[in-house]
Amino acid sequence: MASGGPEIEQLIQLLARLPGYGPRSARRAVLHLIKRKDQLMLPLSAALDRAVAAVRSCEICGNVDTISPCSICADPRRGESGILIVVEDVGDLWALERAGVGQVRYHVLGGVLSPLDGIGPDDLNLDALLSRAGDYTELVLAMNATVEGQTTAHYITDHLSGRGIKVTRLAHGVPVGGELDYLDEGTLSQALRARTEI
Amino acid sequence: MASGGPEIEQLIQLLARLPGYGPRSARRAVLHLIKRKDQLMLPLSAALDRAVAAVRSCEICGNVDTISPCSICADPRRGESGILIVVEDVGDLWALERAGVGQVRYHVLGGVLSPLDGIGPDDLNLDALLSRAGDYTELVLAMNATVEGQTTAHYITDHLSGRGIKVTRLAHGVPVGGELDYLDEGTLSQALRARTEI
Ligand SMILES: [Zn+2]
Ligand SMILES: [Zn+2]
Repeated sequence: MASGGPEIEQLIQLLARLPGYGPRSARRAVLHLIKRKDQLMLPLSAALDRAVAAVRSCEICGNVDTISPCSICADPRRGESGILIVVEDVGDLWALERAGVGQVRYHVLGGVLSPLDGIGPDDLNLDALLSRAGDYTELVLAMNATVEGQTTAHYITDHLSGRGIKVTRLAHGVPVGGELDYLDEGTLSQALRARTEI
Repeated sequence: MASGGPEIEQLIQLLARLPGYGPRSARRAVLHLIKRKDQLMLPLSAALDRAVAAVRSCEICGNVDTISPCSICADPRRGESGILIVVEDVGDLWALERAGVGQVRYHVLGGVLSPLDGIGPDDLNLDALLSRAGDYTELVLAMNATVEGQTTAHYITDHLSGRGIKVTRLAHGVPVGGELDYLDEGTLSQALRARTEI
């Protein structure tokens, strides 16, 4: 046996699977929690229970929220701009929201096309995008500046051609090969303002 | 609003208080959890609930376990060596156990004497140590090699003098200023084997 009882050991093993954590940092985290049982461990336990019960995927856009349609899809002011921003991941949506890009709506693909990894159009939230795109005047493709991200952008552009929807991409403020979620909010904000038509 | 509903926001804020985490990494962790709801988020939530309910401090040694007396204090083989290792923190006890130091018992002080921080003898688990020390033939002082750790070691040595208990410290394999919990297990193991009498 290493540390504490089986309940503690299991908690360490699960925390070790969080991003940035391993067995050693997970042990430190568990000790940190145990020492702050009332101030941190109990509230975290309760918050996790509540989040597990509440979290759902938005049936319209794929955003993560505690209601579906999510608060963004449910807000009529969000539709007035006519702008729909397409992102790979919920983390990218959150990053754009933190950058304060304005009254827009989003569509979360849940990944990018990647034939080498066996990820094709049917594995992404693409059909729903092509269905709802007609409700918007402009589609901003905000995929990461990777090969797969750009392949996915091409796929979407091809399938929307001739439907009279303006398709733009984020300005080249996004570093090549960079990931949206790591960018500072000023860069993201500028990249959106200087977006260019494809 | 930034990300998700209030339940998600609160979970992010609590995870941001884990060691090594901040607001950004906590957001990543929450997304990581939400994407792995069945494989990770639900098990973690359940494990945390179980650990909160089960964790207690050993009434004898101050170790963290799910029973009290802890499994080490309750194991009669642990008493046969007559060796009691005094540590600052539960993390140090865990580190020594991982190093496989053998059939020993421990005493967790819960800190070190630090007059500058207002931490005196009454703030530590010291009275209990002086009471139980007589049941052992050797006390190994395994405090960190810091000024406060060594001050605490002197305090204990002074209060045990004349009672016929052999008091040793870890060999100088422990780097000066270093913390036990960061040492590799071989060094820890060697430092214990080459322990010297004070
Ligand atoms: Zn939505
Ligand atoms: Zn104990």
